[in-house]
Amino acid sequence: MSGYEEMDFCKLDVDREERTGFPEVIFGLGKTPEQAEAIFGRIAEVHGRALVTRASAEMAERIQAAYPGAVYDPVSRLIRLDGEPKRLPGTVAVLTGGTSDIPVAEEAACTAEWMGCQVDRIYDVGVAGIHRLLAQMDRIRAASVVIAVAGMEGALASVAGGLVRRPVIAVPTSVGYGANLQGVTTMLAMLTSCASGVTVVNIDNGFGAAYQAAVILQLVAEASEK
Amino acid sequence: MSGYEEMDFCKLDVDREERTGFPEVIFGLGKTPEQAEAIFGRIAEVHGRALVTRASAEMAERIQAAYPGAVYDPVSRLIRLDGEPKRLPGTVAVLTGGTSDIPVAEEAACTAEWMGCQVDRIYDVGVAGIHRLLAQMDRIRAASVVIAVAGMEGALASVAGGLVRRPVIAVPTSVGYGANLQGVTTMLAMLTSCASGVTVVNIDNGFGAAYQAAVILQLVAEASEK
Amino acid sequence: MSGYEEMDFCKLDVDREERTGFPEVIFGLGKTPEQAEAIFGRIAEVHGRALVTRASAEMAERIQAAYPGAVYDPVSRLIRLDGEPKRLPGTVAVLTGGTSDIPVAEEAACTAEWMGCQVDRIYDVGVAGIHRLLAQMDRIRAASVVIAVAGMEGALASVAGGLVRRPVIAVPTSVGYGANLQGVTTMLAMLTSCASGVTVVNIDNGFGAAYQAAVILQLVAEASEK
Amino acid sequence: MSGYEEMDFCKLDVDREERTGFPEVIFGLGKTPEQAEAIFGRIAEVHGRALVTRASAEMAERIQAAYPGAVYDPVSRLIRLDGEPKRLPGTVAVLTGGTSDIPVAEEAACTAEWMGCQVDRIYDVGVAGIHRLLAQMDRIRAASVVIAVAGMEGALASVAGGLVRRPVIAVPTSVGYGANLQGVTTMLAMLTSCASGVTVVNIDNGFGAAYQAAVILQLVAEASEK
Amino acid sequence: MSGYEEMDFCKLDVDREERTGFPEVIFGLGKTPEQAEAIFGRIAEVHGRALVTRASAEMAERIQAAYPGAVYDPVSRLIRLDGEPKRLPGTVAVLTGGTSDIPVAEEAACTAEWMGCQVDRIYDVGVAGIHRLLAQMDRIRAASVVIAVAGMEGALASVAGGLVRRPVIAVPTSVGYGANLQGVTTMLAMLTSCASGVTVVNIDNGFGAAYQAAVILQLVAEASEK
Amino acid sequence: MSGYEEMDFCKLDVDREERTGFPEVIFGLGKTPEQAEAIFGRIAEVHGRALVTRASAEMAERIQAAYPGAVYDPVSRLIRLDGEPKRLPGTVAVLTGGTSDIPVAEEAACTAEWMGCQVDRIYDVGVAGIHRLLAQMDRIRAASVVIAVAGMEGALASVAGGLVRRPVIAVPTSVGYGANLQGVTTMLAMLTSCASGVTVVNIDNGFGAAYQAAVILQLVAEASEK
Amino acid sequence: MSGYEEMDFCKLDVDREERTGFPEVIFGLGKTPEQAEAIFGRIAEVHGRALVTRASAEMAERIQAAYPGAVYDPVSRLIRLDGEPKRLPGTVAVLTGGTSDIPVAEEAACTAEWMGCQVDRIYDVGVAGIHRLLAQMDRIRAASVVIAVAGMEGALASVAGGLVRRPVIAVPTSVGYGANLQGVTTMLAMLTSCASGVTVVNIDNGFGAAYQAAVILQLVAEASEK
Amino acid sequence: MSGYEEMDFCKLDVDREERTGFPEVIFGLGKTPEQAEAIFGRIAEVHGRALVTRASAEMAERIQAAYPGAVYDPVSRLIRLDGEPKRLPGTVAVLTGGTSDIPVAEEAACTAEWMGCQVDRIYDVGVAGIHRLLAQMDRIRAASVVIAVAGMEGALASVAGGLVRRPVIAVPTSVGYGANLQGVTTMLAMLTSCASGVTVVNIDNGFGAAYQAAVILQLVAEASEK
Repeated sequence: MSGYEEMDFCKLDVDREERTGFPEVIFGLGKTPEQAEAIFGRIAEVHGRALVTRASAEMAERIQAAYPGAVYDPVSRLIRLDGEPKRLPGTVAVLTGGTSDIPVAEEAACTAEWMGCQVDRIYDVGVAGIHRLLAQMDRIRAASVVIAVAGMEGALASVAGGLVRRPVIAVPTSVGYGANLQGVTTMLAMLTSCASGVTVVNIDNGFGAAYQAAVILQLVAEASEK
Repeated sequence: MSGYEEMDFCKLDVDREERTGFPEVIFGLGKTPEQAEAIFGRIAEVHGRALVTRASAEMAERIQAAYPGAVYDPVSRLIRLDGEPKRLPGTVAVLTGGTSDIPVAEEAACTAEWMGCQVDRIYDVGVAGIHRLLAQMDRIRAASVVIAVAGMEGALASVAGGLVRRPVIAVPTSVGYGANLQGVTTMLAMLTSCASGVTVVNIDNGFGAAYQAAVILQLVAEASEK
Repeated sequence: MSGYEEMDFCKLDVDREERTGFPEVIFGLGKTPEQAEAIFGRIAEVHGRALVTRASAEMAERIQAAYPGAVYDPVSRLIRLDGEPKRLPGTVAVLTGGTSDIPVAEEAACTAEWMGCQVDRIYDVGVAGIHRLLAQMDRIRAASVVIAVAGMEGALASVAGGLVRRPVIAVPTSVGYGANLQGVTTMLAMLTSCASGVTVVNIDNGFGAAYQAAVILQLVAEASEK
Repeated sequence: MSGYEEMDFCKLDVDREERTGFPEVIFGLGKTPEQAEAIFGRIAEVHGRALVTRASAEMAERIQAAYPGAVYDPVSRLIRLDGEPKRLPGTVAVLTGGTSDIPVAEEAACTAEWMGCQVDRIYDVGVAGIHRLLAQMDRIRAASVVIAVAGMEGALASVAGGLVRRPVIAVPTSVGYGANLQGVTTMLAMLTSCASGVTVVNIDNGFGAAYQAAVILQLVAEASEK
Repeated sequence: MSGYEEMDFCKLDVDREERTGFPEVIFGLGKTPEQAEAIFGRIAEVHGRALVTRASAEMAERIQAAYPGAVYDPVSRLIRLDGEPKRLPGTVAVLTGGTSDIPVAEEAACTAEWMGCQVDRIYDVGVAGIHRLLAQMDRIRAASVVIAVAGMEGALASVAGGLVRRPVIAVPTSVGYGANLQGVTTMLAMLTSCASGVTVVNIDNGFGAAYQAAVILQLVAEASEK
Repeated sequence: MSGYEEMDFCKLDVDREERTGFPEVIFGLGKTPEQAEAIFGRIAEVHGRALVTRASAEMAERIQAAYPGAVYDPVSRLIRLDGEPKRLPGTVAVLTGGTSDIPVAEEAACTAEWMGCQVDRIYDVGVAGIHRLLAQMDRIRAASVVIAVAGMEGALASVAGGLVRRPVIAVPTSVGYGANLQGVTTMLAMLTSCASGVTVVNIDNGFGAAYQAAVILQLVAEASEK
Repeated sequence: MSGYEEMDFCKLDVDREERTGFPEVIFGLGKTPEQAEAIFGRIAEVHGRALVTRASAEMAERIQAAYPGAVYDPVSRLIRLDGEPKRLPGTVAVLTGGTSDIPVAEEAACTAEWMGCQVDRIYDVGVAGIHRLLAQMDRIRAASVVIAVAGMEGALASVAGGLVRRPVIAVPTSVGYGANLQGVTTMLAMLTSCASGVTVVNIDNGFGAAYQAAVILQLVAEASEK
Repeated sequence: MSGYEEMDFCKLDVDREERTGFPEVIFGLGKTPEQAEAIFGRIAEVHGRALVTRASAEMAERIQAAYPGAVYDPVSRLIRLDGEPKRLPGTVAVLTGGTSDIPVAEEAACTAEWMGCQVDRIYDVGVAGIHRLLAQMDRIRAASVVIAVAGMEGALASVAGGLVRRPVIAVPTSVGYGANLQGVTTMLAMLTSCASGVTVVNIDNGFGAAYQAAVILQLVAEASEK
C-alpha cells in the first residue's frame, strides 16, 4: 500500500493495477471533459489502456481527438482504449429483461470485455414470456458468471438465480415508472429475492457487476495457474 | 341506494347483498369480541351467512358459543357461517410462492369458497424453482381467475401473468425481511410488474383478492343467465 | 408454451395471442422510433392489428408513414392499428375524478376498444362534488367492469367500490402535487381502500386496467360460448 | 408575554389561559404518573380544570386518588377535571369512517366538550357505503365545525369537505395495515384531498382537531360579543 | 344536493356557491388554456366572479383577452375576476418565514381577498431571528385567523401557534434543499408541531389555507348575523 | 429441469443439488417446528446433509431429538447436519465492523463451512479505528473471497473493496438506531459505495453472502478440475 | 497510528486516548453483560475511567459488582467510572424542548461531565411557549457550546441557533408520534434548519453531541495552553 | 435582542454581527437578482463585507456591476466582498472524497476564509484508496477543525472521525446515483457513523459546515483573549 500520483485536481491511484489487477476506471459523471481527458491521458500512459464510464459525447470527442485509438459507444456511454488485457477464462453471460435494459447491459458487457472477459449477450428474456428464457438455458448454464439486468419488478434475477450453479449478479435498472420509483423498487426486490445467493449492485450499475464478474474470473485464472 | 340499520356503535349496511351480491363482511381487526359478535349475529339473522376476517381466537370462541354453526380456522383467521351461497361457475386457482404465504392464501381460498367459488390450491410454486410452477400449468390454465400470493420479490405474479389468458390478481405478503420492508417492496414490485394486466391488492389482503375473484365469477354467472 | 421470433434487438412473442387471447402490445417508452416501427410492422403482419402505448409524436409519424391505417391519439399517446378484434360482451365504464385525469382514462378507454370492448366514458365525477357521481349511478351500474381513474387522494375508487356489484379496477394518476408524491399517495390510498375488492394497477397505467377489464370480458365471452 | 412557573422538572405555562383562552393541556405520553400528577395538581389549582391526553390507567388511578373529581375514560384515554368552561356557541360534528376510529373520535369529542363545545357524534359513516353519510347530511350541515376522523384511505374528509360550508378538520387514524403505513398514507391522502380547504392534523391527533375547533368557536363567541 | 352543468369535457359544479358560500375555483395545473378559459367564462357568467390558481402566463393571456376585467399576478400565479364578494369580518394575518415563501403567501393572501377577507401581510419573520417575529406580535394577535407560511424546518408554525388565541393554519413550502425533501420535511414537521391546534395543508397550498380562513370568517359572519 | 417431490405442505426441490451443486437450504423463519423437521428429515435422507437458517431453539430441539447428529448454534441460529461436502479450494475471509455484527457473521461463516469452504474470521475491524483493519491486511489479502459484515454506515465494505484483488460481498446488518433505519441506510450506503465491484445482499443475510462465496469457489474448483 | 489490544471477541483501541484525548466509550446496545464487563474492566485498568452508554440494568448490576466505584443512572442509561479527567474550560448548556426529552439530555449532560465539562441544564424551554426560552437567554449565551435536545418538530434548534454566537449541536429525539416518524422528521427538520451553522447528530444520540462539545472545549483548552 | 431594518420585501437582521459575530449571509437560491443586490448593498454598507451563497451568474453580474470589489467564483457559487474580518486562530482542513465533491468543498473553504479562517484544502482522499488519506494524516491532524465532504456512502467521515482529536463536521454531497437517493443515503450514513462525535449538516451545505467551524474558532479566539 503505497504510491499515488498527485495531479492538479486529484490523486491518481497508479498502484491500483498492481493491487487489484485492473487500472483505475474513470467515472465520467460530474467530471469536466478537461478533467476526464487529463486523467485518461495519464492512465493510458501508465497502463496502456483506459476506460471512462458515463461519458458524454463532448467528453468522447475531446478524448478521441487526443487519443485516436479510443472508441466511444453512445449506447453504453463508455470510452475504451483497449490495451492487451490478460485474457480471462470462461464466459460472462449478460441477460436483459427487455430491450430498454440494453444500455445498462452494454455497459456491463463492454466493461467485462475491456477487462479481458469473453461475453455472451442474451437479451430480451424477461419473465413475462418465460419460454424465451427457458429456450436459452444451455447458453446461460454454459457461462461462468451470470449478470441479470432488469427493470420493473426485476424478477429475472430470481428466476435465473434458481436455474444455475454459477454466481448471479443482479443489476436493477431504472426502466419503469410510478411504483418503480426510478429503479428503487427493482433494487429492493432483487435484494429480497427468493433465490439463494444472488448479489446486487446499484441501480443502472452495469460497470459494477462486470467488475465483480471479472474479479471472479481473475481469481479462477490465478487459481488455475498455481 | 337506501337502507342501513342503526346499531349501538355502528351502522349496518343491510342493503349490501342486494346492491353488490354479497353481505357485508366483518373486518375483525380493531373490533372487540363483543362488537364482532353483535354484528355477526345481526348479519347471520338477515342473510343466513356471515364471515369475519382477521379474527382472534377469543373472538371465535365467543361467536361459536352463540352460533354453533360458525367455524373458525386459525390459519386463515376466518370465522365462517356458511349459508347456501349461489354456486358460482368456473374455478379460482390460488397460488403461493412458498409455505410461509399459506395463511394469506387460505384467507383468499376460504373467502372465495364462502362466496360460492370452487377453489384449486396450488401452493409452493415460487420462481426460484421454476419447474415446480411449469409442472402445474394445466391446472393453472384451467382456472377462470388466478390469485397469485407471494412474498419477498413477488415474481410469481409476473411469471403467472405471462402464462394465462385469465385475470391474475396479485396478493403481496409480508413474508421476508430487511429490504422487503414488511411487504411494501413486494407490493410495489407487483405493481410495476412486466406482465400485462396484473392487478394488485393490499399486503396480506387475501380477502380482497378473493372478493374481486368472486365478483368476476358473479358477472360470468349473471351474463350466462341472460 | 413454445415459439417466439428472434428479431435483431428483441424476441417477439408471436405465440402470445394464442396463449392469452391478445397480441403483444408495444410499450413505447424507452424504445427508439426505429425499434417501435420494426416491432409494430412484424406484429401487424402476424396479427393484423397492433398497439403502441406511451408513444411519442415522432414515433407516430414514422409508423404512420409506413402503416397509413395506424391512428395516433396525442391525448392517450396510443398508436392503434385496429384489426377485427373479437367483439367482447358488456361494457367497460371508465370514470375520472377530474379533467386532468383524462389522458390516463383515454389510454384505458382506447386500449379497451382496441381489445374489443364497448366503453362508456363517465368523466369528472370526483368525490368533492359527490352528486355528480350519484347522478351517473345508472350508467355506472350498467357496466360489466368499472375502471376508476383518479389522482390526488383517489377517493373515487372507494366510493365507486361500495356502489356496484361488478369488478372495480382503480388507476391512480400522478395528478396532484406535494403530499401527493407523484401519485404514490394516490396509489397507496387506493390499495388501503375501505371498499372490498377494489384492485389497483400502477400509477398512470390506464393500459393495465383496460387489459384486465378485457381479459375479464373475454372470460365472460368464452364462458357464455360453452 | 411573561410568566411561567418553575416546577421541579418543568416550566408550567400558567399564563397560557390568558394568552390563548385555554389552560395548558398535559400530554401524558412519555411522562411518569408522578410527573403527570404534579402538573395536574398545579393546573387544577390555578385554573380549576385540567385535562390529560394519552393517559395510562396507572396515571389515572394516581390522579383520581388525589383528585376525586377527575374522570378517566379508557376509550379516549383522557383524564378530565371539568371546571366551568365558558360555553361556546354552535356545535362540533365529529364523524368517523368506521368503528375502529372511535377512540380517536372520542379524544376529539371529549376534548371539545372539556373546552366548552357542544358535540354531535356521527359515527360509522365511511364512504364505502355512501348512503350512510348522505343520510346524515342535515346533522352534518347543522354543525359549525366538522371533524372528520378516518383511517385507511381517508376519503371521508374529501367527501365531507365538498358537502359543507363550514371548516372541515381531518384527523387521519392509524387504522389499517400494509399500504396504510400506520396512518401515513391516510394523512398524506387527506393533505392531497381534492376538496378545497380541508386542513389536517397529525395521525390519531383527535385532541389537536378539537383544539382548533374550540379556538374557532371561541373566535365566533368573542366576535359576537363585540 | 342537486345540480351541476355538463360541459364538453367536465361537469361544472354551479350549485357550489349556494352549498358552500363560494363559487368553484379553477385549479389551473394540468388544464389547457382552452379548458381554463371555457370554465372561467361559464363561472364568471353564473357567479359574476372567478379565480384560477396555478395559472400559466399563456392561460392568463387567453383569459384576459376574453375577460378584460381579469387580473393576472405572476407571483401568486392567480387570475382573478373580482365580483362583489360579501365582505367578511376580521382580518387574516399571512406570515412568512423568508422572502422565498412570498409566492405561496401571495397565493394565500390574494385568494383570501378574492373571497372577501381583509388581509395583513407580515413577511420575513422567520425564527432564526426571533425578535423580528416578536416585534410584530401586536399585529399578529389582532388577526382573526393566522396563516403561517414557511419552508425549511417550518418552525414558524410552532412559535406562532404558541402565541395566539386564534386558529393557526400552517402552509409548508417547498423552499429548501437536501433534507428538506421538496417540502415533505416541512410538512411533516408542522404536523408534529409541539404547539396545540395548528392545522396543516398541502405543500405550497396557499389557496387551501386561505379557503379555510375564509370559511371560518364566513362562519363568524353568519353567526353574528343570527 | 425436472423433478421435485410433493410433500404434504410443500414441493421439495430434490434436483437442486444436481442443478446447482448444493442441496436446498431450509429458511426457518415462518415455518413451524413440525414443517422444519419434516423437510429437514427428507433432505437429510436424500442428500446426507441439511441446513436450517433462522432456526428457533424450539425448532432445534425437535430436530435434534430426531437427528442427533444435527448441531444447533444459537448465535448464528443455524441447525447443521454436516455430510461430507466436497472441500472447496481457497479461503473465505469474514470481516465484521464490530462485536454486534458477529451473529450475522457467524451465519455467513458457518454456512460457508457447511458448503465446504475454509473460513478465516477477522472480527471487530471497523473503520473508526482503521489501524485495526490495516493490521489484518495480510490475512484479508490471502483470502479468495471477502465477506464484509457491518452495520451503522457500513464503511467497512468500501475500505475493504479498495484494498483487495478478490470479490468483496457486503452484508449490511441492522446494528444501529435512528438514522440507521433498521439497516436500510447501511444497505443503501453499501450499494452506493465508492469502491468498484462490491456486491451487496439483503440486511442481515449472512447466508446469502456465504452462498455466493461458495458458488464462486465451486466455480474455481470445477475450472481447476478441467 | 499503532496499537490495539486483542481481546477474546474484540480489538480494544487502547491508543485511542492518546490519539483523540478520550478513552474508547462502550456502546452497550447489542453487547452481552459479560462482554460489557470485560471491556469495562480492561478500559478501567488502562485509563482509570470508563463509560458505558445505553446500558441495561442487568449490565449495570454486573459491572457494579466488580467495580464498586461505577455509578449507574437509569434515566440516562449510563454507567460511569469517573477518573480524574482534565477539567475543560467554559460550560456546555444542555437545553430540552420538553420533559420527555430529559433522558436524552441527561445522556448528553452526564457524558460531558465524564469528559471533563461543566454543564448547565436548561430544561423544558420548547418554542410553543417561547417566553420560557427567552427568559433563559443569559444562561444560554453564557455557555461555550449549546446542545439543543428536542423531539416533535425540533424547532428549538433553529430558534437557539439564531440567538447565540457559539456552536449549537442539535439532538433530535424520538419523542412524538405519527408524522414524527420515530424522530426521523425531527432529524430532517433540524438538518434543514433556517439557522446558520447548526450541526446535527443521530436521533437520541445525546452521547455524540456531548462528545463533540467536549472535543471543542479540548481544542479551546489546548489552544489556550499554547 | 433588538433591531432589524425593514426593507421593501424583507427584514434585514442588522444586529446579527453583534449578536453572533458575523453579518447575515445571503442565501441566493430563490431570490431574484434585484433582491440579492438590494440586500447585498445594505449589508455591505453596514458591515463592510458581504457574502452570497448559491449565487447565479446573472446575480453575480448585477452585483459586481454595482460593487466592483465583489468577487464571484462559479465553482463554489459564492459572491464575496471581503472586508477586514478578524483573523481567527488555527486552521480548518477541508477534505473531499473525490473530485466531484469539490464545488461543495469550495463553498465550505471560501466561506471559512471569508469568515476569517485559514483553510487547508486536502482533496480526493476517498476511502476506496485509503493510502491517499493516510498519507495526509499529518496535515489533517494539524487542523483545529476538520470538514469532511463526501458523496456516495460517505465513509470518509467515519474514517476521519476515528483518526483526529478535533471536531469533525461531515458534509454529505449529492454526488452519486440510484441508491444514493440524491445524497439522502450519504446524509443518513454519516448520521449513523460508527465514529464518535461526528456532527452532520444538510446535503451539499458546505456553507453550514464552514459557519460552525468559524464559530468554533471564534470561541477559541475569544477564550484565548480572556
